[in-house]
Amino acid sequence: MRYKPTFVVAAPALDRLTEVLGEISDLGRARALLAWDERTQMPPGGAEARAEQLATLTRLRHERLRSDELGRLLERVEGELDGASRDSFESSLARVTRREWEKARCVPTELRAEIARATSLSERAWEDARERSDFAGFLPHLARVVELKRRYIECFEPEHPYDALLDDYEPGMTLVEVRPVLARLAAGTRDLLSEIVASGVDLDDTPLYGEFPVDGQRELAHRVVALLPLDPDEVRVDTTVHPFVTPIAITDQRVTTRYDRSYIGTALWSVIHEAGHAIYHNGYGRELERTLLCASVSLGFDESQSRLWENWVARGRPFLGRLLPLLAEQFPERFGGLDAEALYRAANRVRPSLIRVEADEVTYNLHIALRFELEVELFEERLAPAELAEAWRARTREHLGLNVPDDAHGVLQDVHWSAGAFGYFPTYSLGNVIAASMWKTAREALPDLDDQLAGGELVPLRDHLRQRLYRHGAKLLPAEMVEELTGGPLDPEPLLAHLRRKHGTLYGLAD
Amino acid sequence: MRYKPTFVVAAPALDRLTEVLGEISDLGRARALLAWDERTQMPPGGAEARAEQLATLTRLRHERLRSDELGRLLERVEGELDGASRDSFESSLARVTRREWEKARCVPTELRAEIARATSLSERAWEDARERSDFAGFLPHLARVVELKRRYIECFEPEHPYDALLDDYEPGMTLVEVRPVLARLAAGTRDLLSEIVASGVDLDDTPLYGEFPVDGQRELAHRVVALLPLDPDEVRVDTTVHPFVTPIAITDQRVTTRYDRSYIGTALWSVIHEAGHAIYHNGYGRELERTLLCASVSLGFDESQSRLWENWVARGRPFLGRLLPLLAEQFPERFGGLDAEALYRAANRVRPSLIRVEADEVTYNLHIALRFELEVELFEERLAPAELAEAWRARTREHLGLNVPDDAHGVLQDVHWSAGAFGYFPTYSLGNVIAASMWKTAREALPDLDDQLAGGELVPLRDHLRQRLYRHGAKLLPAEMVEELTGGPLDPEPLLAHLRRKHGTLYGLAD
Repeated sequence: MRYKPTFVVAAPALDRLTEVLGEISDLGRARALLAWDERTQMPPGGAEARAEQLATLTRLRHERLRSDELGRLLERVEGELDGASRDSFESSLARVTRREWEKARCVPTELRAEIARATSLSERAWEDARERSDFAGFLPHLARVVELKRRYIECFEPEHPYDALLDDYEPGMTLVEVRPVLARLAAGTRDLLSEIVASGVDLDDTPLYGEFPVDGQRELAHRVVALLPLDPDEVRVDTTVHPFVTPIAITDQRVTTRYDRSYIGTALWSVIHEAGHAIYHNGYGRELERTLLCASVSLGFDESQSRLWENWVARGRPFLGRLLPLLAEQFPERFGGLDAEALYRAANRVRPSLIRVEADEVTYNLHIALRFELEVELFEERLAPAELAEAWRARTREHLGLNVPDDAHGVLQDVHWSAGAFGYFPTYSLGNVIAASMWKTAREALPDLDDQLAGGELVPLRDHLRQRLYRHGAKLLPAEMVEELTGGPLDPEPLLAHLRRKHGTLYGLAD
Repeated sequence: MRYKPTFVVAAPALDRLTEVLGEISDLGRARALLAWDERTQMPPGGAEARAEQLATLTRLRHERLRSDELGRLLERVEGELDGASRDSFESSLARVTRREWEKARCVPTELRAEIARATSLSERAWEDARERSDFAGFLPHLARVVELKRRYIECFEPEHPYDALLDDYEPGMTLVEVRPVLARLAAGTRDLLSEIVASGVDLDDTPLYGEFPVDGQRELAHRVVALLPLDPDEVRVDTTVHPFVTPIAITDQRVTTRYDRSYIGTALWSVIHEAGHAIYHNGYGRELERTLLCASVSLGFDESQSRLWENWVARGRPFLGRLLPLLAEQFPERFGGLDAEALYRAANRVRPSLIRVEADEVTYNLHIALRFELEVELFEERLAPAELAEAWRARTREHLGLNVPDDAHGVLQDVHWSAGAFGYFPTYSLGNVIAASMWKTAREALPDLDDQLAGGELVPLRDHLRQRLYRHGAKLLPAEMVEELTGGPLDPEPLLAHLRRKHGTLYGLAD
């Protein structure tokens, strides 16, 4: 079976469009496999050639995406579809393709390829630099990537330079819309954190720390993924430095994770986080395969689903009761005598920390606030790349009240900037905001949700989310999808209310 | 560092040519990774999308290779290089690229696509048919593939139809050159086999059979590869159904193997065979990366190196002495008390058998003779596809003195014909012939070779082979390279002499 959709109307241009988009998609999928392989399988000797291979596939895909043929084809398709409803497959295909085509027309192919080449090398340099906590050694790569991203921004002449960066992850969203949401979230979070600190209560998370052999963790991670609503024939789990997930097809999801010998939380929640993305990608309508619609609404929406499965499901009391027996079987000396309530408390301890990926769900948003501010200042040219390490230290004191001992625990901790992914960090907090709204709706739609989660019955929740969000792929813009789901604009209040309610109980805060 | 070569003369067309060839190469490498992943990593759910991805990359590469631009570029490059020496990088690049371009121009894209489609279906049908030993069920596919290959042959108007098939694997070689070599080899091999059978001696290979847990075999295979002259940063070993090796870059070699629970020979010699290919590919001059010169001289030369490392090195007495301790450590109950001489005899037992991939180094060439004769008769239209099963039985009696019990052990045993790979089988025997000549030269050049092999010191041999063969990639045609290495044409006598000498001693034959 080929996933080729059948059109309601005879539309020869539309047929040809799906062929061209199929080719563009295949190039993108092949590139994704090269990137996945680079991070999980490739022997180090392959690195230099891989940078060239990635650059070539990126260039070929970009050439096709911005081609004159695609432009002409779109005009003909728009003629053929005159009158088709806006949310039909055909109209969505034409609309989203036109958006991508117009955007690609703005960016010279050589710049695209140069960014691919530079970031592939820069990522390798970052790995080394983080290992040795050597910001100075990484700086030339970082500076080069920032320079290229500035040239990229210039291609669009945006209102604010940051808008062009944001648009790659949150199509159509601007700094003006995002900044107040993140500011309100940071302020609300800081208030809650102050109350938590002032409460004098500290939750005991020592059960999560100890000596956990990697083999046992790997087995646990595979068993945890097997609990999730993913067909085992459509997913695999590999080890990497910085966890991610890549779809090679709707039915071929590549989840990656890493293992921390002295902390079991990574093998548990990080793998569920990445699998949460995979549950979303695995739920796209099959007719979207090999088109530009076969994607999440935005990175924020993507993140909303990884967060929802990680935090709302897998740090919630009901499902932790289902996870506990697995932990106890794998590490009996550690979890054999623990009760579900103790695990729930351990899983939800709030404490300012240095590493974003290890942060609890309250302070996490402060890590994002810090990065978002630095990125905006960097692209407003109020901050130079060389100043980032020091600025990171200062901002960590301000937001989290902590001193950064070395750059591996500071500016070098995340892969994103080495990969040129500026404008990406806000999507994590936007994801939290969206997840809170969607969880609220799911609760209303599924009255037995807690019982289902406690029984490990996750399909009803997944199917609800598929129905509401997943199956539509990238048909709508993020603002449109937020409106569709919540009837209003992006709103941080449900998230703040959720955090206040949950941690208010855990920490015995006044209502 | 990018592997871009520096040219002696200013040559703008040559610069552009290397760009175009870099792109063609990257598409080929990405396709190779998709294929490697499909066979070693991909979850089953990825299969349908993978077929599309492979087809797209194949089509894009072919379009580029036969493009008008490449033709114009070649004309300009040939002008720029007027007077450059024939074996220079630049001249070789232009010459080999012209050859590939002209060849690609001969074949209509539709025929190429039709062959790809038909062989894809045929391979799947073959898998089923072999399972059920059902030649009649496979016949329509086989007939279709033969018909398409006949149309393919017509694209080239060769002297003899088989020449066009051979040319895909042994560029420039013809039936007139190959036939007498294979005929002499078959006759000499049959004579030797008669003497071996008549000797009444049987070597004991029971130590190689038993119960070998796969985990232990995998560890053994990795330790064996670690002994070989390959940088561990430039190779990896994975498990698959039908072993192969794929270079993703000169310095990124993907070796694959399989494990037979009841026979240790696969984990040992099959992995060395595939690694032998990798040692060759890993030795191409770095300046050849991302050009059409970054390839073996031919399939025969490729096979010569896998055979040389598998049979001459790893079934030879000195290196078996180095392998024995590894076997004894991994499987002490089986190899703990065995001496090197007993292992040497077990590794070299000669016995006619039905399955080519399990054949010893003497009878192997008879398996090839059988296939070669049938292929020639098929394309001379003296044999119809429907007659192949019966002809196989008759020829097996004639060459190997064995009765074929069913077609799974006869005409259906190999994947090659289902995949349209007619003309491929001779390259296995040509590889043996070339390996014998190269081994003779290596012995002369390295007087301490046996001591080096016994000590596990394999770098001197590799460096000798690199110097003579590997570093040149595909600069020369096979006949030219044979002449360069041996001062004459392809000669089966050194191989026959080697087999006579080695097995004469093992089986106590008269001199």
